[in-house]
Amino acid sequence: MADINSATTDIIRAHHTLSFQVVKLAFMMTGNGLYTGQVHLLDIDLHPDFYDVTPSSFYTTGMREVTVIYNPRNQYAHKYNFGHALLYAGSKNMMGAAILCAKACLRAGCGLITVHTETGTQPVIQASFPEAITSNENDLQLLSKKKAAIGMGPGIEPSPANAILLDELCSTWDGALVIDATALHLLTGKQTTLLPRKNHSTVLTPHTGEFDKLFGSSSNDFERLEKSIANAKTLNSYIVLKGPHTSIACPDGNVYFNTSGNAGMATAGSGDVLTGIITGLLSQGYSEKEACLLGVYLHGLAGDFAAEKHSQEAMIASDIIDSIGECFKKIRDLKSQTPNVY
Amino acid sequence: MADINSATTDIIRAHHTLSFQVVKLAFMMTGNGLYTGQVHLLDIDLHPDFYDVTPSSFYTTGMREVTVIYNPRNQYAHKYNFGHALLYAGSKNMMGAAILCAKACLRAGCGLITVHTETGTQPVIQASFPEAITSNENDLQLLSKKKAAIGMGPGIEPSPANAILLDELCSTWDGALVIDATALHLLTGKQTTLLPRKNHSTVLTPHTGEFDKLFGSSSNDFERLEKSIANAKTLNSYIVLKGPHTSIACPDGNVYFNTSGNAGMATAGSGDVLTGIITGLLSQGYSEKEACLLGVYLHGLAGDFAAEKHSQEAMIASDIIDSIGECFKKIRDLKSQTPNVY
Amino acid sequence: MADINSATTDIIRAHHTLSFQVVKLAFMMTGNGLYTGQVHLLDIDLHPDFYDVTPSSFYTTGMREVTVIYNPRNQYAHKYNFGHALLYAGSKNMMGAAILCAKACLRAGCGLITVHTETGTQPVIQASFPEAITSNENDLQLLSKKKAAIGMGPGIEPSPANAILLDELCSTWDGALVIDATALHLLTGKQTTLLPRKNHSTVLTPHTGEFDKLFGSSSNDFERLEKSIANAKTLNSYIVLKGPHTSIACPDGNVYFNTSGNAGMATAGSGDVLTGIITGLLSQGYSEKEACLLGVYLHGLAGDFAAEKHSQEAMIASDIIDSIGECFKKIRDLKSQTPNVY
Amino acid sequence: MADINSATTDIIRAHHTLSFQVVKLAFMMTGNGLYTGQVHLLDIDLHPDFYDVTPSSFYTTGMREVTVIYNPRNQYAHKYNFGHALLYAGSKNMMGAAILCAKACLRAGCGLITVHTETGTQPVIQASFPEAITSNENDLQLLSKKKAAIGMGPGIEPSPANAILLDELCSTWDGALVIDATALHLLTGKQTTLLPRKNHSTVLTPHTGEFDKLFGSSSNDFERLEKSIANAKTLNSYIVLKGPHTSIACPDGNVYFNTSGNAGMATAGSGDVLTGIITGLLSQGYSEKEACLLGVYLHGLAGDFAAEKHSQEAMIASDIIDSIGECFKKIRDLKSQTPNVY
Repeated sequence: MADINSATTDIIRAHHTLSFQVVKLAFMMTGNGLYTGQVHLLDIDLHPDFYDVTPSSFYTTGMREVTVIYNPRNQYAHKYNFGHALLYAGSKNMMGAAILCAKACLRAGCGLITVHTETGTQPVIQASFPEAITSNENDLQLLSKKKAAIGMGPGIEPSPANAILLDELCSTWDGALVIDATALHLLTGKQTTLLPRKNHSTVLTPHTGEFDKLFGSSSNDFERLEKSIANAKTLNSYIVLKGPHTSIACPDGNVYFNTSGNAGMATAGSGDVLTGIITGLLSQGYSEKEACLLGVYLHGLAGDFAAEKHSQEAMIASDIIDSIGECFKKIRDLKSQTPNVY
Repeated sequence: MADINSATTDIIRAHHTLSFQVVKLAFMMTGNGLYTGQVHLLDIDLHPDFYDVTPSSFYTTGMREVTVIYNPRNQYAHKYNFGHALLYAGSKNMMGAAILCAKACLRAGCGLITVHTETGTQPVIQASFPEAITSNENDLQLLSKKKAAIGMGPGIEPSPANAILLDELCSTWDGALVIDATALHLLTGKQTTLLPRKNHSTVLTPHTGEFDKLFGSSSNDFERLEKSIANAKTLNSYIVLKGPHTSIACPDGNVYFNTSGNAGMATAGSGDVLTGIITGLLSQGYSEKEACLLGVYLHGLAGDFAAEKHSQEAMIASDIIDSIGECFKKIRDLKSQTPNVY
Repeated sequence: MADINSATTDIIRAHHTLSFQVVKLAFMMTGNGLYTGQVHLLDIDLHPDFYDVTPSSFYTTGMREVTVIYNPRNQYAHKYNFGHALLYAGSKNMMGAAILCAKACLRAGCGLITVHTETGTQPVIQASFPEAITSNENDLQLLSKKKAAIGMGPGIEPSPANAILLDELCSTWDGALVIDATALHLLTGKQTTLLPRKNHSTVLTPHTGEFDKLFGSSSNDFERLEKSIANAKTLNSYIVLKGPHTSIACPDGNVYFNTSGNAGMATAGSGDVLTGIITGLLSQGYSEKEACLLGVYLHGLAGDFAAEKHSQEAMIASDIIDSIGECFKKIRDLKSQTPNVY
Repeated sequence: MADINSATTDIIRAHHTLSFQVVKLAFMMTGNGLYTGQVHLLDIDLHPDFYDVTPSSFYTTGMREVTVIYNPRNQYAHKYNFGHALLYAGSKNMMGAAILCAKACLRAGCGLITVHTETGTQPVIQASFPEAITSNENDLQLLSKKKAAIGMGPGIEPSPANAILLDELCSTWDGALVIDATALHLLTGKQTTLLPRKNHSTVLTPHTGEFDKLFGSSSNDFERLEKSIANAKTLNSYIVLKGPHTSIACPDGNVYFNTSGNAGMATAGSGDVLTGIITGLLSQGYSEKEACLLGVYLHGLAGDFAAEKHSQEAMIASDIIDSIGECFKKIRDLKSQTPNVY
């Protein structure tokens, strides 16, 4: 089994696959999981510089990489230093998405969070998450004022009003923007018009189904990966393709595969949590690339802690949120122990 | 005291009862608990093959059996792999039943959960359990689309609309179905018409009172057991008769007695939790038989963990839900340690 | 300082008071706490039989006494064995009282709990405590059917409708009844008419202020104690006079002083929790006397656990509820270790 | 770098700053944090009496000082001994502020808490915090009766009605008063008229932005500090200027800098928690000075416990509330170990 997806040829269904020193691209493909079984890396004593001198546009994100990205808090900060995030999330039957997204956003470290919801649904958020401010202000210019980052999508209706809002966001909002879930649905067919209008990059967080609707279906994971790279470039976007090894395709053509996470995260609301985390990191001033890499890794690591506590079967999205703190503590400890990674 | 319930003859009220190697059927009868006191099994060194070669239609479900049934998660899964469960549960004064059932369902491992509730009651669910999607869509065809399993009954009104819904479910829904609580009440008198219409088996989860309404009163536990076997066959149903040793009568005539659980589970909402767990397991692709055996055992084991933490008196149904994760971890650990049970 | 409250004579304000073997009645009086400081009992090696042969109508309730009262669960029980409790509690601005009372009631071990509340307030209870059934059924005969015990008072309005309900409860309800808070206010002036109508004893749970309104003001704690004894006899009631050493005056003239608890329990909702616990114990079949002694002790012990975890200052009523399980576990363990106390 | 803020001259950006024995005033200035890096105090063996004989109007509040202030509970208390606090807090989109403030207030040890909120928003508080009583009674005289302390501001609307209420509070309310958030905004421009009308001191808890609106902008932290001292005197108020080293300027001209806390407290709702804590301490009978010193320190220490558990990034305001109990336990333990500090 080589670096292309050889679904058309004969393949052995291995229980174990041995490889030298580094993971192969094919191991990152969801569809190949059936054939590799458990992957073992054999240390062949490659010189560490090897990684830096060998050109590749494919990377993995692990604890080492996020420890470099992570930026400990300035001890003289106040809440406005960590940004005020704005979320467009939730609707009458999907308020939970707004709650999960908002909680994750604040626990990812932003200073303040405002959730725009349908009129009448505010009490649900406030009873569940008192730290959130709610709003039903429909004037984007008013509501987005002094906001550091905006996330749109979890649990919203695919309504004409939301389609107009997405259009307006892409046309007039200068800051960091994450588009997820229903907002990706609303974006479908307009992405080449809307996204390039923006001054800087956008973050898109589709799962495979949403990705295929946006960019057309693919016959295999490699083709889908190629599409994500092409579109990340064209649309000046970070395309976070969610799956067992979530890939982040960057506008510069590089791709980062995430190495944390587990099958217990295949649970309702897990994606809303990721959107909240990335928006919360953007809000604190992390760049789009940093927020995607650190956010996706944090989400997976929090899921690993949650599975350890609750099992993969029983864990739910709220458990992922509750484990975000442990992740930051672990990353901070590692960073303080390895001063040379600063 | 032999294998029949000899309530009409003189019986000793023992503090302790000693038996050889295996439990006797009579020990599984609730009404006999008064007479056996604590049961002790004496190991007489029977050959393990004994169990397999001795024909019987009565079995007990213990950790050994559920470890075989339990199917660890494929690491390359996404939430649609674990199924989207649909619950008809809750009404104005019984919303809690919907919340408990839905939480248990998701913590049992299904991927997504939608709760159909009365119009106006959605905020109660969403504030309590953000992972749930709510719906008041009354068109079964629309709502049941792409659902993996349906549970009906906890906390619903015995209304004409719900009677019609139950009828429609039995007539048109092809997938896995659990009928509990008020839905059992609505089924009463129509079971011989409705249940055989279905292509495959149904799961019924009555407590003794509900069972007697459905199938007529019994003069003792043995008679009730016989009725459950007869009806399981006739109605092509798994009849989960809830009690201290919950019995599961299968369409093939076999009966499985559960061995986990304790008297602390005699608390409000405990049955709603069981319905949620079974629906959640069905949703992941477990067969009706597997979902009943594994679900009833999980429910009891989670209750045992809850009693250890909170006492039998103080434990409540939410504590059972909170302990589901520990059960899966224990079963998974056992399974990984005994590869030959695969 | 002797056994009467000598507030009119010169008293030393001691930091420590030493006494022989047993507490003196005066130590149980709240007003004397200022003068005794910390009380130390010196063991003078009195024969244990002393307690049984020395006639007194004043007793203390400690771990030894409640271990005798406590009745472990029959392992073959279902939820109807532990009774269905009914609470009249809560109103628009005091819903919390209903939630705290209902949670404590179920955690005290009753099988089912229905809370009667004002129309429109049900969602608040259901979102907070899914195990509860709510009701706004105003027909007492309908609602009280098949109920094992009724508690009335926490957080209700002093409305004419509630006055009529209390009257009806006393006139027609045959089962166990606890009257607290606003219901005590509504009872004031009518107690000699209403309470003797009942077939069996009632439980009243006033704090000092409510007691004085019911039975007239007292010049000191001894006078108040005497009044509680006299009224307990006349009204065939158990009068639980809440304070640092809660006293329970019984219809037979005996008084039991509680020995558990701490000043951290002087917090909003603590009394609602006590009412819930006593109603929950009555619901399981404990007698009025047993429910009062065990309930008051449990409440205090749970408060002691809560203070250990959260401090006396920071602990709130919910923390008391969360500690009820630890109390039952401790009492059960003690009982199983000392079989002769059965 | 001396004791004035020398922002206009050349400054070294140090990684570490060494100082002798005691902190310098300049280290307390937020703006200087950029230049000092981490501050280390070198023990030069100064005689402990030094602190008492060296005149200064600048103090730090540490564990030693709050242990002296802290007053353990009288064991014969009931809830009315710890006071009934009243909060004007919350509005349709900011109910969370009311919940956080009320929870912190009760966990700080007051006996009872009533929250005045907009009509229709009560259910949100009651579902989240059952210990609270809610009210929409707009007559201050009625509502403030028998209240021990009042806090106004978190999450309220800047409405004319609230402006009138603030005016009335300052004119007619004799007891302890804390003004925060929106109430500070409403006070702006009227402080010299309203505050001196009161019989005794008021507590103001502005962050830098609110402070500058009230008292005019400052070119540096020293100027702002001077303004806080001048206004504390003129307005007979305790001015709690929130920041990394929160300062408390007293009417007598002294200033206390807090030494607990961390950058994780720069999170939504953290200020609402502080207002609750101070109001709760005032309610128990602590003086304004004691409540400010103890309250600000408790708030910071609880934040330190929360950061230890959840990390600075992931901790949210609710985590601070949950840690208040640990603070009281620590302070109480220290006090009991050092009887000479009584």
